[in-house]
Amino acid sequence: MTYTFLGPEGTFTEAALLKVPGARDAARVPASNVNAAMDAVRDGTADAAMVPIENSVEGGVTATLDAIATGPDLRIVREEVVPITFVLVARPGTRITDIRRISTHGHAWAQCRGWAAAHAPDAVHLAASSTAAGALALLDPASRPGDAAICAPIVAEEHPELEVLATDIGDNPGAVTRFILVARPGALPPRTGADKTSVAVPLPEDRAGALMEILEQFAARGVNLSRIESRPTGRYLGHYFFSIDVDGHIQDARIADALRGLHRISPHTRFLGSYPRADGARPVVKDHVTDEAFASAREWVEGILGG
Amino acid sequence: MTYTFLGPEGTFTEAALLKVPGARDAARVPASNVNAAMDAVRDGTADAAMVPIENSVEGGVTATLDAIATGPDLRIVREEVVPITFVLVARPGTRITDIRRISTHGHAWAQCRGWAAAHAPDAVHLAASSTAAGALALLDPASRPGDAAICAPIVAEEHPELEVLATDIGDNPGAVTRFILVARPGALPPRTGADKTSVAVPLPEDRAGALMEILEQFAARGVNLSRIESRPTGRYLGHYFFSIDVDGHIQDARIADALRGLHRISPHTRFLGSYPRADGARPVVKDHVTDEAFASAREWVEGILGG
Amino acid sequence: MTYTFLGPEGTFTEAALLKVPGARDAARVPASNVNAAMDAVRDGTADAAMVPIENSVEGGVTATLDAIATGPDLRIVREEVVPITFVLVARPGTRITDIRRISTHGHAWAQCRGWAAAHAPDAVHLAASSTAAGALALLDPASRPGDAAICAPIVAEEHPELEVLATDIGDNPGAVTRFILVARPGALPPRTGADKTSVAVPLPEDRAGALMEILEQFAARGVNLSRIESRPTGRYLGHYFFSIDVDGHIQDARIADALRGLHRISPHTRFLGSYPRADGARPVVKDHVTDEAFASAREWVEGILGG
Amino acid sequence: MTYTFLGPEGTFTEAALLKVPGARDAARVPASNVNAAMDAVRDGTADAAMVPIENSVEGGVTATLDAIATGPDLRIVREEVVPITFVLVARPGTRITDIRRISTHGHAWAQCRGWAAAHAPDAVHLAASSTAAGALALLDPASRPGDAAICAPIVAEEHPELEVLATDIGDNPGAVTRFILVARPGALPPRTGADKTSVAVPLPEDRAGALMEILEQFAARGVNLSRIESRPTGRYLGHYFFSIDVDGHIQDARIADALRGLHRISPHTRFLGSYPRADGARPVVKDHVTDEAFASAREWVEGILGG
Repeated sequence: MTYTFLGPEGTFTEAALLKVPGARDAARVPASNVNAAMDAVRDGTADAAMVPIENSVEGGVTATLDAIATGPDLRIVREEVVPITFVLVARPGTRITDIRRISTHGHAWAQCRGWAAAHAPDAVHLAASSTAAGALALLDPASRPGDAAICAPIVAEEHPELEVLATDIGDNPGAVTRFILVARPGALPPRTGADKTSVAVPLPEDRAGALMEILEQFAARGVNLSRIESRPTGRYLGHYFFSIDVDGHIQDARIADALRGLHRISPHTRFLGSYPRADGARPVVKDHVTDEAFASAREWVEGILGG
Repeated sequence: MTYTFLGPEGTFTEAALLKVPGARDAARVPASNVNAAMDAVRDGTADAAMVPIENSVEGGVTATLDAIATGPDLRIVREEVVPITFVLVARPGTRITDIRRISTHGHAWAQCRGWAAAHAPDAVHLAASSTAAGALALLDPASRPGDAAICAPIVAEEHPELEVLATDIGDNPGAVTRFILVARPGALPPRTGADKTSVAVPLPEDRAGALMEILEQFAARGVNLSRIESRPTGRYLGHYFFSIDVDGHIQDARIADALRGLHRISPHTRFLGSYPRADGARPVVKDHVTDEAFASAREWVEGILGG
Repeated sequence: MTYTFLGPEGTFTEAALLKVPGARDAARVPASNVNAAMDAVRDGTADAAMVPIENSVEGGVTATLDAIATGPDLRIVREEVVPITFVLVARPGTRITDIRRISTHGHAWAQCRGWAAAHAPDAVHLAASSTAAGALALLDPASRPGDAAICAPIVAEEHPELEVLATDIGDNPGAVTRFILVARPGALPPRTGADKTSVAVPLPEDRAGALMEILEQFAARGVNLSRIESRPTGRYLGHYFFSIDVDGHIQDARIADALRGLHRISPHTRFLGSYPRADGARPVVKDHVTDEAFASAREWVEGILGG
Repeated sequence: MTYTFLGPEGTFTEAALLKVPGARDAARVPASNVNAAMDAVRDGTADAAMVPIENSVEGGVTATLDAIATGPDLRIVREEVVPITFVLVARPGTRITDIRRISTHGHAWAQCRGWAAAHAPDAVHLAASSTAAGALALLDPASRPGDAAICAPIVAEEHPELEVLATDIGDNPGAVTRFILVARPGALPPRTGADKTSVAVPLPEDRAGALMEILEQFAARGVNLSRIESRPTGRYLGHYFFSIDVDGHIQDARIADALRGLHRISPHTRFLGSYPRADGARPVVKDHVTDEAFASAREWVEGILGG
């Protein structure tokens, strides 16, 4: 197996990838952006790509939402949820009170600004192209690094020559990012009973109330939505597709039936995958939408038609 | 073929039966009430029964609605809509101004009261057990008949010895009654494109908003309701079943799919038949609920499941 | 106070009227039919009329549903639910085994046929114009009565000269009939927290899915339907109005708001009254449809509009 | 009047601001980011701020969506839609074939990459902090600029010392960005009949199907949605608010009524403003949701309650 992921190495995305069984011992090739990661899977250079899709603070990762909704079909086969925690690292011997310049990516700086103001009030931000790059520069004096860097815990783990001065320095302690593992279409991940299904549904142009109709396909089958995002198709202002996650697997009769309904309303609906939920939570399935209820209904109608 | 119908002979029900091709030359046995007609079909004494189901003024015929919704399965195979018009008949030579007593059934008298007040103001009502009985009594002086009778045109046609003094004397000129022809389950009447499907749907006891859910099964598939009646199941006050007619044939994919949905919500839903509409009106079928849309959606999901 | 009721005396309708506080000592005038009872209220001859509206076995009383939905406005001010139980009465000294002819109304005979077949298998039915008439005829030998009569318990209570041979002889032990007390529009019965509101809603002709829209007015405000009946308006086959009971009082904000919604969709909607439920059951009112939620929402919008 | 806008000068945002009557002659202070612009309005430093909210290709501007949905109330009072077109500028005398380095912001480079590949295949991208900054650097040789720059037409208009080598070089010719003018709460912009209303609606946590309920508040009043975006509240993964634009003004009865419904379902719903549509398009208002229909319904219910 060869994996790719949104690089560089040492970011939360690689941390997510390392949670995949076997990935630690497989080839892992960083990609420079989400589209490059997807293309590597599409052209066979990689077997699967780990990319971020949603952050609890920042929202959806639009590059990912758009990349899997267009171009040759891809399938989400797994999700990972990673807590976003930051550590402050420096060359051994550095004291927090001595720090004047902290190197990190702008996003990370934004999420640790409160901590910095409280514990290193004199330090300024030195921009780095990624959290990992800022930290590794500390080990290369020629690069004119800062006095310290803010990065993901994984970087410190992989580089014991960096000293961890402080942990959990993010201002938003519960922040998490959700990542998806994307592969070419193939066998569906087996149904576990605690699954998610993702779809991209273009809003039909010529039908008033179309979003309601889309949601009703799920509501009418007792299917819960766990995520919905609107994204422009780029055609004109106000033309959207919806990226939706629901509870259940396409091998569940209620999900298959809802997808049939979606396809009728919006024939360019794209199936993005059924895969196990990271949290293992099982949905409550009401009596009238069990596999048995669907099977019994089908048999009843076939009995009449055949009769 | 042996037909039965809600008797006696000479009523609008027999007129409806005579519109069925071949019925004029077949055996036609009047039944004393709707249940007796249904039972004759169920036990094989008759092949089909013509009974009234709905009048444009009086509403649903509850005996019929209840009789087909309980007991061994029966199927509606045809409908007929008959204008309810009345004629005034008498022995030859009678003049309207001489009439003092008009014999007819109470329902008919109620529907011609305006005419009688205007044209025979001195006449009183003489109760008869049916419109036909009141008219035929005129031919049997021993029966102490009235001076004239109000009856269906069919009686006058079949008894030329009665003179028609006035036609179309009903106060509600557009009144019609709809009749259904009921048979034992067998081959479905072929789909014509202008069909109706009838069902009886018990309201699930334990589900709030269940009526909405029932109606949504049709609305979500673009299926129009042409009739809905609530009837008590007799179990307790407020426990109902709904007798529903919709536009379409169970061989239409949208109808079959809606019936599957009904069966899941209310597993004791009873299919009462798919049959041609009397008026030949064809429903407008939107793009997303055509047979092709359903077939395409099914293939799409099967393609994904088959991997 | 002068009351009228669907007569004759000694029927279940009078039993319902006698449950109204004060009615036992007030004038009580039987009416020959439901329309006559309504007209007596409309023209001031009576202050209120008690009429049946629904039977747990037979369904809605169409004469009542239609009479309150047309003509000058009337208001339901009270409901009563009366168990439908029958007794067998005869002249003193009669033995059940001697009975050959049982006098009663056809409806009552239909509901006691099982008991009669078991306990008086040789007895035949002798038709009477009402259950009370059949019973009272036993006291008048000139009327050629039967050997016994089936009637409401109230007749036996009021006529101790009749002997009760058997009680509770109905085949459907839980049968009840619901009655309504109807008055001219005036002060609304006070809100008790366990109320019902009745409306008659013509189905708008020109709007597809109009029944769904009507039901949504209630569903969107968390209002439960306890009864719905369709009735023809008489204009043409398929043109209906719906007679609907919901849980709540028009002084409840959620009911007032739902009625405003109904009026917009179907401007000829008729308010038929808000009145206490006979069973005293209180609805569960969700947080978002309490009077407080409506008041808070109104104030919020007024604050914005007021600037 | 003092205006602020998302700076620097010479961007599409300033172009949007200049379309506001009077803005050309008013003070215009660029802000370094959206939050700074909002804060300037909140603290009174500026009277209004122009910020981007939505691009037809890139989607919603999350910084804006979040900034107006939290913190002290602000109100959208105007919208402007600006075509996103790019020009290539250089010092006078430069020929396209001589260009080796093109300076611009990364977003602009991404949108003109196709043109560059076709017309200046040897040119590479030189990152600038904004499109305007890249262009202005051409006039300051000390800044080591590129050979040319890609920027908004407004920069070339304001700096005639730059030569325009090519216009309309964006790869997506119909691209537009929508901007909003934000002020402190005050008098509402007058109703024009072609208005928009914006709200931010937190998804109630404890209610299944809450998004459907939110949408139904609009659908039930015939109100069309023109934009919907989900944004995380930051509390936990899957907790959203929805940023919604609908057709109409809060002074339209149907909009006021829908907002009351939203407030009941989600009491922390925030009103973000009613303001004229940039395109002047008027919605079709169905009979049952006109101001007159609402007024008539209110009077009807008040008549009963007062009666």
